[in-house]
Amino acid sequence: MYSEKVMDHFMNPRNQGEITEADGVGEVGNPTCGDIMRIFLTVKDNIITEVKFQTFGCGAAVASSSMATEMIKGKTLEEAWEVSNKAVAEALEGLPAIKMHCSVLAEEGIHKAINDYRIKH
Amino acid sequence: MYSEKVMDHFMNPRNQGEITEADGVGEVGNPTCGDIMRIFLTVKDNIITEVKFQTFGCGAAVASSSMATEMIKGKTLEEAWEVSNKAVAEALEGLPAIKMHCSVLAEEGIHKAINDYRIKH
Ligand code: FES
Repeated sequence: MYSEKVMDHFMNPRNQGEITEADGVGEVGNPTCGDIMRIFLTVKDNIITEVKFQTFGCGAAVASSSMATEMIKGKTLEEAWEVSNKAVAEALEGLPAIKMHCSVLAEEGIHKAINDYRIKH
Repeated sequence: MYSEKVMDHFMNPRNQGEITEADGVGEVGNPTCGDIMRIFLTVKDNIITEVKFQTFGCGAAVASSSMATEMIKGKTLEEAWEVSNKAVAEALEGLPAIKMHCSVLAEEGIHKAINDYRIKH
């Protein structure tokens, strides 16, 4: 059911945790399943230098967030904004259709965190 | 949104993993969200002496399985069969309504694993 990439990012999630003094924080809920995602950003000169995620969501949410945070690290805020949940799912070599809503959590969390950073700075 | 007990069992799940030479194994899928649960049992003289779970499911599935496996360990197969997802949710001091379907995974996984044991022995 799940690709090797999904299982790898689920079993060994990258960037899981919290940044206590984050420059931007995004929290989103998933109306389909009730799960929660939090994204924490450290931003220097418009570049995302550090990013962490926390979720109560399922394996697909963990794998998507792990991959998404890898994809936006080192990118400008504008580039990071363009990383869609579809691109994340492709990088994971696919997600079952019933699990696509889980990958949306990561995209929305990143958008909210970037917004939060922009409002504060 | 989640009780302290839920967060405790989510952050420090009990009995997570695999029993390689299990006496009974149950695997169930969740039609609501597409998640999977696996329950592994070791049975001696009709008593569950060891139990482990694996899931790709969300925090509520992890917490429910952790609690459910704690509740059935040391019980007879008949007693373990009677542990309902409602009893598990109560032991967790409640689950949000949208998350009750996640706790059903653990109950069904246990039933399937007990069945599997009975068929084999
Ligand atoms: S089912 Fe809720 S995040 Fe995947």
